[in-house]
Amino acid sequence: MHESEIISIFLKHLGRGGDLPLGDDAGAVRFGDEWLVATNDMLVRETDVPDIMTPEQVGFKAVTMNVSDVAAMGARPIGFLFSIGLPKGIEVGYLDGIARGLSRGLEFYGVPVLSADTNEAADLIIDGIALGTTDRLLTRSNVKPGDLVCVTGDIGRALSGLLVWRENLNVSPRTRKVLYQKFLEPTARVLEGMALRDVANAAIDISDGLSKELHLLAEMSGVRIDVRSGALPIYEEVFEVAEALGKDPVELAISSGEEFELLFTIPPERADDVRFEFNVIGKAGVGRGVYLDGTPMPALGWNHTV
Amino acid sequence: MHESEIISIFLKHLGRGGDLPLGDDAGAVRFGDEWLVATNDMLVRETDVPDIMTPEQVGFKAVTMNVSDVAAMGARPIGFLFSIGLPKGIEVGYLDGIARGLSRGLEFYGVPVLSADTNEAADLIIDGIALGTTDRLLTRSNVKPGDLVCVTGDIGRALSGLLVWRENLNVSPRTRKVLYQKFLEPTARVLEGMALRDVANAAIDISDGLSKELHLLAEMSGVRIDVRSGALPIYEEVFEVAEALGKDPVELAISSGEEFELLFTIPPERADDVRFEFNVIGKAGVGRGVYLDGTPMPALGWNHTV
Repeated sequence: MHESEIISIFLKHLGRGGDLPLGDDAGAVRFGDEWLVATNDMLVRETDVPDIMTPEQVGFKAVTMNVSDVAAMGARPIGFLFSIGLPKGIEVGYLDGIARGLSRGLEFYGVPVLSADTNEAADLIIDGIALGTTDRLLTRSNVKPGDLVCVTGDIGRALSGLLVWRENLNVSPRTRKVLYQKFLEPTARVLEGMALRDVANAAIDISDGLSKELHLLAEMSGVRIDVRSGALPIYEEVFEVAEALGKDPVELAISSGEEFELLFTIPPERADDVRFEFNVIGKAGVGRGVYLDGTPMPALGWNHTV
Repeated sequence: MHESEIISIFLKHLGRGGDLPLGDDAGAVRFGDEWLVATNDMLVRETDVPDIMTPEQVGFKAVTMNVSDVAAMGARPIGFLFSIGLPKGIEVGYLDGIARGLSRGLEFYGVPVLSADTNEAADLIIDGIALGTTDRLLTRSNVKPGDLVCVTGDIGRALSGLLVWRENLNVSPRTRKVLYQKFLEPTARVLEGMALRDVANAAIDISDGLSKELHLLAEMSGVRIDVRSGALPIYEEVFEVAEALGKDPVELAISSGEEFELLFTIPPERADDVRFEFNVIGKAGVGRGVYLDGTPMPALGWNHTV
């Protein structure tokens, strides 16, 4: 069964979706004058965890992937919950590492644990849940024609790191380090998300790849998005990996998932109000579809299998 | 590894616990004048789902077990999230049943879905998360000496139903129906929990067995609890199963988990303010420990394996 088939089965039966339609980075309900934002994301060792990832990195990532969705809604994370499924005979050392990683992540983002549950399961599974609050929601469906399309940080290192590992590429220790940092220990853009709530029109975090997220923004907002490849923030090391594998570096960068950067759009006159570094990679306009240097951009993305 | 060992590994690293210490039915953070309550509970088919349970019942139970924890805190459930792990090759019909069951549960309790996530996993896993709000928290640690110890509904049918199924007992269709209703389709005491927030001193839901929950209340509140076996609300059908298996019916009833009844304590002068049916089963006093008819009550309970 394809993921889309599974999702359609659930959507068919589950009509109610809080005070915001399902389909955003997180769900939301009104809570007095504020919005309560809630999101969850399950990490399964078999499919989501490359074997060079340390248990600390696994725990840290379980926090990051959820906090990132809260950040993409412009919300401040206020709590974390997790359920953990443990296979029989898991080593104490591994479990201790996961607990250390979770703890490090929660400290890094300043979030308390509200509830935790442990179970026996066939595979190691961590289901993380993050809650947040905001007085204004950043959604995926509010891009306006004329908006500048922007991204935090850089893109492409997560997939490049995965390829270095999977293809056993012979790269310099420095290159490996730069790529593995993003591949194994990505961090969420929490402060940036909170800063954007008052200036941006829309936002989404890059979990499935820039290209897929651009398509989601364009579709859900009913706009056309034009991106210039020369404006994409791509590290030299990504070009290095692309060359070694005979791949197109831009294609590699826009397919790279689990970057946890924020893709957001702002009216041009608000660009100076953004108080952190970012790159303008394109512009939204009237119409539909996503274009790269004037040509339709395919919806390339992460397949969630390592 | 024992569950207690696993929990102690996590507690060692995870110091921060919201605005309420970890160890209650749910975690809580202050949210303006109210408390936001959050809980999660993972259901694993291999260990939690007897094979006569229909997928609809599995989906419904995933909602009930979480909503029950919110109810035990005196809170109104305001949102539900779930992550589902699906083994390769799961049948569309089974999945559709789970979705129907989740939907029925959410309608039954009047709760919207805020977020959902699907993944491939080695076993069928549903991690449910419930959020709730209340202006006053009911905890496990606030039993006062002199409080009446009370329980909603009846106890013992869940385990009796499990035994009928597991031991293939020859009981009448009526008995089977009465027991299976609680064993396969238990419901959470949401309205009762909300009604209790202003009158009860403490509450807990019966997920691991009355006896274990009584011990938790006594320990966490620093009181002694005396229970009279003759006051326990036990259906005739539970006696029938106990007799067929040569077991003590009271022991069976107090070990029965996943009842999702509320165990709560109230000052005697507030008993008339409780506007639903319940049974007074005992009394809290100065001291420690749990006693049944004057004799120490063992902490019998659910072993979470079917």
